[in-house]
Amino acid sequence: MKKIGVGILGCGVIGAATVNNLIKGAGDITARSGIEIEIKAIAELNPERKKAVPEPASALFTDRLDEVIASDDIDIIVELIGGDTIALKAVESALKNGKHVVTANKYLLAKHGEGIYKIAVDNGVEIGFEASVAGAVPIIRTLKEGIAGGEIKSIKGIINGTANYILTKMTESDADFAEVLGQAQKLGYAEADPTYDIEGNDAAHKIAIIASLGFNTPVALGSVYMEGIIGLKPEDFDFAKQFGKVIKLLAIARLDNGEVDLRVHPAMLPCSEPLAQINGVTNAVKLEVSHAHDLMLVGPGAGGDPTSSAVIADIVEIARNIASGSVGRVSPVAFGLDARLSLPVKAMDNIETGYYLRFHVEDRPGVLSKITGILGDNGISVESALQKNVNESVVPLVIFTHTAREKSVRQAVEKIDELPTTREKTVIVRLENGE
Amino acid sequence: MKKIGVGILGCGVIGAATVNNLIKGAGDITARSGIEIEIKAIAELNPERKKAVPEPASALFTDRLDEVIASDDIDIIVELIGGDTIALKAVESALKNGKHVVTANKYLLAKHGEGIYKIAVDNGVEIGFEASVAGAVPIIRTLKEGIAGGEIKSIKGIINGTANYILTKMTESDADFAEVLGQAQKLGYAEADPTYDIEGNDAAHKIAIIASLGFNTPVALGSVYMEGIIGLKPEDFDFAKQFGKVIKLLAIARLDNGEVDLRVHPAMLPCSEPLAQINGVTNAVKLEVSHAHDLMLVGPGAGGDPTSSAVIADIVEIARNIASGSVGRVSPVAFGLDARLSLPVKAMDNIETGYYLRFHVEDRPGVLSKITGILGDNGISVESALQKNVNESVVPLVIFTHTAREKSVRQAVEKIDELPTTREKTVIVRLENGE
Repeated sequence: MKKIGVGILGCGVIGAATVNNLIKGAGDITARSGIEIEIKAIAELNPERKKAVPEPASALFTDRLDEVIASDDIDIIVELIGGDTIALKAVESALKNGKHVVTANKYLLAKHGEGIYKIAVDNGVEIGFEASVAGAVPIIRTLKEGIAGGEIKSIKGIINGTANYILTKMTESDADFAEVLGQAQKLGYAEADPTYDIEGNDAAHKIAIIASLGFNTPVALGSVYMEGIIGLKPEDFDFAKQFGKVIKLLAIARLDNGEVDLRVHPAMLPCSEPLAQINGVTNAVKLEVSHAHDLMLVGPGAGGDPTSSAVIADIVEIARNIASGSVGRVSPVAFGLDARLSLPVKAMDNIETGYYLRFHVEDRPGVLSKITGILGDNGISVESALQKNVNESVVPLVIFTHTAREKSVRQAVEKIDELPTTREKTVIVRLENGE
Repeated sequence: MKKIGVGILGCGVIGAATVNNLIKGAGDITARSGIEIEIKAIAELNPERKKAVPEPASALFTDRLDEVIASDDIDIIVELIGGDTIALKAVESALKNGKHVVTANKYLLAKHGEGIYKIAVDNGVEIGFEASVAGAVPIIRTLKEGIAGGEIKSIKGIINGTANYILTKMTESDADFAEVLGQAQKLGYAEADPTYDIEGNDAAHKIAIIASLGFNTPVALGSVYMEGIIGLKPEDFDFAKQFGKVIKLLAIARLDNGEVDLRVHPAMLPCSEPLAQINGVTNAVKLEVSHAHDLMLVGPGAGGDPTSSAVIADIVEIARNIASGSVGRVSPVAFGLDARLSLPVKAMDNIETGYYLRFHVEDRPGVLSKITGILGDNGISVESALQKNVNESVVPLVIFTHTAREKSVRQAVEKIDELPTTREKTVIVRLENGE
C-alpha cells in the first residue's frame, strides 16, 4: 500500500482537529483511496498542546519547523500556523523543497496567493487550500472542478460566521450591536478582538481568494471594497423587516462588462432569497454560473472539526495525485497559470444598485421634500419612503431608492448630511436582489 | 495540446445542451485544463434533432451507435439516451471496449450501477455520473472527494423538482393536487405522465445512487421504501403551517446502528430547517458528516443546461485523468470496490419517528378519546391534537405524535380506520426534524 507522509505545522484548534480526525478517519481514508496517510511530525512550540492529541501523535511534537519542512519522510506539509510571517516562509520553502502544501490560511493566500501558486506550479507540487474559505464547504473544489465548463457570473457569500451570528441575533431581537457582540464573545463565536470579523477584513480575504479562482484573475487584497456592520442599529433591522428584507454581511464578486465588482458590506436581501435564510454562524456561497444557473453551498464555516474536514479532503486529494502520478492535474487556480487574465476591479464609485438610506432628521414640514429634492437632483429616484412614528423631535426617515450610481448616492448623502435638519450621519445599506 | 475525443449517444434536451455548451465552453475548458475536447460523433436516430445543435455538430450525426462505441477516435462515450435497454448495452460495451463513460441516467445506475462500476474498474476505465443526481448540484463529487476523511451519518434530499414544485404551490395556495399538477404540466415542470415524479420513483433512484456512495454499500433499488404525494390535501398544508411546518417530498438515507434507513415519502419539516426553505423546482441535498457537520448543496436539479453542466464537469475530469495518466485515481463509488460493505436496509416497520396523522371522523363526543385510546394501547404518545372548527358532521382531526415505531402506528391507524366513526382513510405524514 502507498504511504504518504504528512507534517503538520501548528497544533492549535485546527491542527489538533486535523491530527485527531486523520487518526480517527484512517480506516476510511484507506478504504477510499488505497493510501495510508501517516503523520510524521508536528511542529509546535507550545508543549501544552500535546494534550489535545492522542498519545502516538503527541510523541511527534517537535520545535524544529525547519527540519519538518526538510524531512525526506514527508510528502505533504500542512500549514496551520496562520498569519504571513512564519507561515509564508514555511510554505514557500516547503514548496521549493518539493513538498506539497495544504493550508487553511486565508490571509496568506489573499495577500500572497498569486506568488505561492506560481512557486507550486514551478516546482511541480500541489497547493491545497479548500479550508481557507468557508470551512467544510467544498467551494474551492466546486470552483476548480465542479463547474468546469461554465462561466461564473457572480459569487455571493455569507462567509463570516461571527458577523452573521451578530446580524441574525439583531434580526431576531431588539438588542443593539454591543450587546449582541458581548453575547457572541461569551459563546466563543467572536474573538476578544473582533475587528477582522465585524469590519469585513476576514470576508474580504475569502472573497479575494474565490474571486481569483472564479474569474481567473489575480485579485489584490486592497482592491476589495470593505464596510463593516458596526454602524447598524436595531431600527435598521426593523425597517428591513417591514420591507420583507434582512441584513447580511455579504461578500460579492461579480463580473461586470470585463470588470470585477468586488466588495464586502452589509446588504439588504429579500427574505425569499436563499442567502437571506442562512442564519447563525453558518456560511454559504452562491454561484451564478452560465449554464449551471444558481448553485448554493452551505455549511459550517469555522471551527476545528469542519475546517479539518476540508484540510483532510485536500490531503487525500494530493495523496491520490501522488499515488497515481498525476501531480498538477488541476491548476491551483482552476485555470492554467499561462491562461490567467488580468481583469480590472470596478471602481466603487461606478457600481449601480438600490440603496436603503436611513436619515435622522428633525420632524418638521419640508424635510422630506428637501431630502427627496437633493436625491432627485443627483438622479436618484425614490422607490419608497417611510418615517418612523415616534413622538420625538428627531426621527428616523428611511428611503429605498431605485437602482442608482454609488457616486451619486454618496454626493447626495453628503449634501443631506450638511442640512441643518439632519442630526446624525446617514446610514447607507446597499440592496442586493435575488438576480 | 492533448485532444480527447467524445462520442455523444442521444441528442435530446440534455444531449443538445451538452453539445452546445461543450462548443461554447471550449475556450474555457482548454484554459482550465490544457485539453481540447472534440466531439467526434453524435449517435441519434431522429434527424430532426440536428436543428438543436450548431452546424459543425449536426454534421456529426449518425445512426450507427455501435460504430460510435467502437471508434478509435473516441475516448469518452457520453450516454444520454435514458432507460436501461439500449443504454445499458451501450454503456457496458463501451466500458468493455476501453472507453470511459459519462452518463446522466439515474435509472440505469440505480438498477445496474453495481455491475457497471465493476465493469469500469475491471477494464481500467472511468464512469462519471454527476449528472444522474440533482442536475448541476455537485453532490457526487462532494461525496467522492469533498469529505474524504469524514463518516456520513445521513443524506436528506429534495431531489425531485416536479414534486417540490407541486408541494411549494400547495403550500402557497389553497389549490388541490390535481389543479397544481395541471399548472405544472402546462409550465413544463411535470411530464404528461407524471407518475415517476409524484410517486417517488425518480427520487428513489437518486437516493439509491447517493446512499450507495455515502454508505459504501450496494443498494438494491427495490429496497428503497417509497410513498408519493398524491394523497395530500390542502388541509394538510394548512395544518402543517399552523404547527410551523412545511411538507416536502424527502429522500432520506440514514445510517442507523449498522443498517441503512432508506426511504422516500412526504415529510413535515420545521420551517426553520434549511431544507424546508427549498422551493419550486430547486433541488437540495443535505449531508450530515461526522466532522464536517451539516453541509447542504442547492441548485437546479433538472433541465438541459444545468444537467449538461454536470455532464461536462465529468467529461473534463476524465479528460484530465487521461491526460495526466491517472485513470482510476478515484473509485467510481468513492470507496475501493474491494473495501465495499454490504449493509442491510432497515425494515420500514422498525423505523422510529414522529407522525402527523389526519383522521376524518364524525364530530361527536368520545371520538377523540377513542382514537387516543387506541394510540395509547399501541404505545404511541400524543404530542398535540387539533380539530378543525368546521360546521359539519365529519371533521378532520389532526394528531402529532411523539417518536413512535412505524409498525405500531400502522397497527393503530388500521384499527382507527375500522371504527364506525372514521369516515376516510387516515393520512400519515412522517415528521423529520432538523437533527
